Amino acid sequence: MSTATDSPTQPAPDPSGALTAALRRHLNGPFGAVREHCRALDPATFGALPAPLPMEEHRARVASQMADLASQPYAAHGFPEHQGGTARYGEAVAAFEMLGHSDLSLFVKAGVQWGLFGGAVSLLGTSRHDDLLPRIISGELQGCFAMTETGHGSDVQNLLTTATFDPASDELVVHSPGPAARKDYIGNAARDGRLAAVFAQLVVDGESRGVHCVLVPIRDESGTPARGVTIEDCGPKLGLGGVDNGRLLFDHVRVPRTNLLGRYGDIGEDGTYASPIDNPGRRFFTMLGTLVRGRISVAGGAGAAARSALAVTTRYAVGRRQFAAPGSDVETTVLDYRTYQRRLLPRIATAYALQLAQHELVSAMDDVLAGRATSEHDQRLLETRAAGIKVLTTRHATDTIQECRELCGGAGYLWANRLAALKADTDIFTTFEGDNTVLLQLVAKSLLADYQATFGDLDTAGIVRFGARLVGGTVIERSSARGIIQRLVDAAPGREEDVTFGIRGTQLRLLREREEHLVEGLARRLRRATAPGADAFAVFNASQDHLVDAATAHVERMLAETFAASVEACADESARGVLARVCDLYALSTIERHKAWYLEHDRLSPARAKALTALVNDVCTELRPHATTLVEAFGIPEGLLTTEMSGTA
Amino acid sequence: MSTATDSPTQPAPDPSGALTAALRRHLNGPFGAVREHCRALDPATFGALPAPLPMEEHRARVASQMADLASQPYAAHGFPEHQGGTARYGEAVAAFEMLGHSDLSLFVKAGVQWGLFGGAVSLLGTSRHDDLLPRIISGELQGCFAMTETGHGSDVQNLLTTATFDPASDELVVHSPGPAARKDYIGNAARDGRLAAVFAQLVVDGESRGVHCVLVPIRDESGTPARGVTIEDCGPKLGLGGVDNGRLLFDHVRVPRTNLLGRYGDIGEDGTYASPIDNPGRRFFTMLGTLVRGRISVAGGAGAAARSALAVTTRYAVGRRQFAAPGSDVETTVLDYRTYQRRLLPRIATAYALQLAQHELVSAMDDVLAGRATSEHDQRLLETRAAGIKVLTTRHATDTIQECRELCGGAGYLWANRLAALKADTDIFTTFEGDNTVLLQLVAKSLLADYQATFGDLDTAGIVRFGARLVGGTVIERSSARGIIQRLVDAAPGREEDVTFGIRGTQLRLLREREEHLVEGLARRLRRATAPGADAFAVFNASQDHLVDAATAHVERMLAETFAASVEACADESARGVLARVCDLYALSTIERHKAWYLEHDRLSPARAKALTALVNDVCTELRPHATTLVEAFGIPEGLLTTEMSGTA
Repeated sequence: MSTATDSPTQPAPDPSGALTAALRRHLNGPFGAVREHCRALDPATFGALPAPLPMEEHRARVASQMADLASQPYAAHGFPEHQGGTARYGEAVAAFEMLGHSDLSLFVKAGVQWGLFGGAVSLLGTSRHDDLLPRIISGELQGCFAMTETGHGSDVQNLLTTATFDPASDELVVHSPGPAARKDYIGNAARDGRLAAVFAQLVVDGESRGVHCVLVPIRDESGTPARGVTIEDCGPKLGLGGVDNGRLLFDHVRVPRTNLLGRYGDIGEDGTYASPIDNPGRRFFTMLGTLVRGRISVAGGAGAAARSALAVTTRYAVGRRQFAAPGSDVETTVLDYRTYQRRLLPRIATAYALQLAQHELVSAMDDVLAGRATSEHDQRLLETRAAGIKVLTTRHATDTIQECRELCGGAGYLWANRLAALKADTDIFTTFEGDNTVLLQLVAKSLLADYQATFGDLDTAGIVRFGARLVGGTVIERSSARGIIQRLVDAAPGREEDVTFGIRGTQLRLLREREEHLVEGLARRLRRATAPGADAFAVFNASQDHLVDAATAHVERMLAETFAASVEACADESARGVLARVCDLYALSTIERHKAWYLEHDRLSPARAKALTALVNDVCTELRPHATTLVEAFGIPEGLLTTEMSGTA
Repeated sequence: MSTATDSPTQPAPDPSGALTAALRRHLNGPFGAVREHCRALDPATFGALPAPLPMEEHRARVASQMADLASQPYAAHGFPEHQGGTARYGEAVAAFEMLGHSDLSLFVKAGVQWGLFGGAVSLLGTSRHDDLLPRIISGELQGCFAMTETGHGSDVQNLLTTATFDPASDELVVHSPGPAARKDYIGNAARDGRLAAVFAQLVVDGESRGVHCVLVPIRDESGTPARGVTIEDCGPKLGLGGVDNGRLLFDHVRVPRTNLLGRYGDIGEDGTYASPIDNPGRRFFTMLGTLVRGRISVAGGAGAAARSALAVTTRYAVGRRQFAAPGSDVETTVLDYRTYQRRLLPRIATAYALQLAQHELVSAMDDVLAGRATSEHDQRLLETRAAGIKVLTTRHATDTIQECRELCGGAGYLWANRLAALKADTDIFTTFEGDNTVLLQLVAKSLLADYQATFGDLDTAGIVRFGARLVGGTVIERSSARGIIQRLVDAAPGREEDVTFGIRGTQLRLLREREEHLVEGLARRLRRATAPGADAFAVFNASQDHLVDAATAHVERMLAETFAASVEACADESARGVLARVCDLYALSTIERHKAWYLEHDRLSPARAKALTALVNDVCTELRPHATTLVEAFGIPEGLLTTEMSGTA
């Protein structure tokens, strides 16, 4: 243990910086070049807000930063070549993630313009909309993604806004039938947007065809609202003051038929509706599925913000001293206290796990968008993984930034030290682009989907077989890591033997067992919903917490496996050694968090459960001298991290 | 279970409002009259901030509200009659707690002026300072409480600022020896304060006498800083924008000797130092102890803010509908979902537990300040309880307001719905007036203090006897509830029998067992620090998480017992029935949170642990129809709760 007595000055376990550099290379992931490019952006332009600004000034600053950002190549990376882009999707998202280290208002504003609005036009539109994209990429044409309504946020399939085809004029009539149909919290709506991608129930020839997306001009060049469009300002928010969220109400607004983004359902010149997907539900979820990039990007930004907080706090923690140990007149560095280590270090380990998982996710997305992975299975897997990682990363960000604020005491409360803005700005990430609780239920449903067809007559053996398939089938399929993981698990002692937590395979086996058990139990419970006379809603509702736990267990297992495979793949020996301990800390602290479950299900004895906690303490102590190295390896540009934070000054 | 199908409209279990009124009377507690008086304050003056203001405007608004507040009787309640007050200490704190429903910047500013600054002059000063108090009460003389330094926040015993007596001029020379000695985060310093109560190491005749408090003028009437005083502005913060936190640096500032607040250590006219308390450590902690009101008030404000958040969110939760159940076209009220109930209702139960404990705490403080409870034991018990309740209430506020924000989705992010300000403003409560982790260690040390003298030769039997004494000795001693609690526990089946969680005595017994076991184990561990050759710091540091757990268990047990006694004491039958269920939910969800511990220590079987979770679910379902009643009973003035929150609008 490192104490003030035996180490009055900070140990320097990486005097040459070689370890930090190797870890940073590893954390850079597959799109490292674009990350380094972003790190060189001018901090005078892209640095965080030095002080909070009044809302309108903040909005103006972000608008000006957007123009500067448009002169960088990143936006174009997100679009195919025939739309004026460079089709480097992974790099687009990696660059966007780096923006998460600057003012998060800029991050969100850019996400609205190029990710959500541009993404909708690019992926839901047809060739007749291609000419809009160059103007969207350059920022000349600014737009909104108008999906959420006051009355429908999570349940977007039941939006109330209508887009009714009028064959007489060959127009679509976009209308908000009441206050609950009002488009709400729409980014870019209150100030800058000119064109909105409006999600509405499409009605053709009196028949509702489900939710489709229609382009509706909302303002002219001078900023005057279009006829029939009422625009309100959502006003001040908890954070993201630089994003102009607004509300849109449509009073029978007419747009040309061709404004329908018709890739998944179009109206021909003859006025008839046609879609390549017959089932309206499947059609809708296919449309939504193409927009998965938004969720992936939110996860990226949340991860970046959490890393900023961890870096600021670690800097404080290794400099701040408080209370001298008995018999010493040297005060103890706060990071040498056990409770402090316990609060900070497992969160750094989780940040590593999430960053490495994000790399896998972005690579998978790149494969899908570039057409290298084209099956419906690939797409569904990507959506499930994106939802799960979005939930865990945004939850991690909220939790970590809060803990960091408290770990820095009063200094953490000052605006100048960045935690205030990080906390306020990322708060909404847990509920936008999909509420986390709702998303976990989507993840769980996807886990169950494989055998839903045979739900009614699935016997116990079938459920067990399914469980095995589940784990085999969803393990980081796109990489070559599957063999590695299986080898690690096979090498670990079986359940009957003593649990030795230091063995990677044992860690992974424990996480797998929890997932399998939860998913199998869930399947059994939900079968009851199909019994004659069952109240399906009651059964589902009573299983809701179970559903959420199963999904969480799935993502946690996936993160640990991705991390384990990444450790094995690390070429630098010293970096691999440290990464392995960080991976231990992630896996063990995750198992520890679910200790009650392992005890309740007789997977751990009380004695082993206690030993687990002792081991997590030991790993914290071991990693403590590497704390600075671990956060320096995040590679956060100094210009963006600047704070007034110091120890005893 | 209430579902959309069987209850499409909200049930009204209290059509006459009688239940709400009875619950409100019960929650009003011993100082209910002053609460009702506060509820009638003009919301136009004291209402929350309708929109965020630029820092200087916000400061000006709060300064103006302070003047209006000074015309109310509350400030005078906090001071004895010979200092111009009315000596109604409990009412002063209860009124102050009600301010927690308005702008929390006003709450904190008032706390700095009348609680901290006024409290220091009142309680640490001597008769020569009495004439200052009327001007402090009226707000004519505004001041600061300058304790925290940049280098010392938790460890205030080792502050660096010095106050050196100069017999030649009969003056004290107040000096900041370096940047770490800078007074930091000092409320009222940046703009409004004129006089500061400065905590400094008192040096008389070359000898250091430990930390004492000296009054130092920092500005003249026109606002010009006093000679030798450098004032800096802490600038924008995460929240509390209306509080002018600043920094003070003293360059050999001379004040008259009589500016020493000398009740616990004074310099006579002959220049000699004298104190009624010989031991410098004991003297310092006695001085600190008199200032316990600050911690109690912070707990009160945090509790009020959490109740505001719960009321706003429950209003949303019973109006908001999302997703129709299968086979129904009526959308389900979100509070009918299990996960939603699980996230909201146990937090309402905790709010009840904390409010009732706060009443006990404020009554105990009233007894001490009014001289009805005068022993050192009374004082120490009050300090321990205040520290523990401050920790749990501020933690509850941070956690609850965060969860409420997420439960309200995008609506929770809008400034207009209050959660933004509640969250930002109360965030610092977890670390000011004592960092929560440090305070929990104080609580634990106090639990151990009774036998510290005999620490070295305590055998196992002694520890067991101590455990019994511990529980017997700290149970809400001042009320008559002790007998009730013991009767409830005695009526419950013993440990060897089946655990029936619905029995109150069983709930209390489980919470007691956890506290006893943790404290006993802690005593055994800390004994090792006294063994020959032991590294006392290492032993202490390795036990730090254990210490924190023991203290938490103590406070949780105390809250449950206070709640249980309060249920028994409730005269209204229908209110008592509902309160009993809320108490069940508090106790059971607390035990459930520590499920891993109960399993690990063989206090619950896996089967019983699973049954516990099922029961918590059932109690949530039972209480769901009462949700609105439970938060209406908080009695938050409508003018302060105004939001734009609605369901589907």
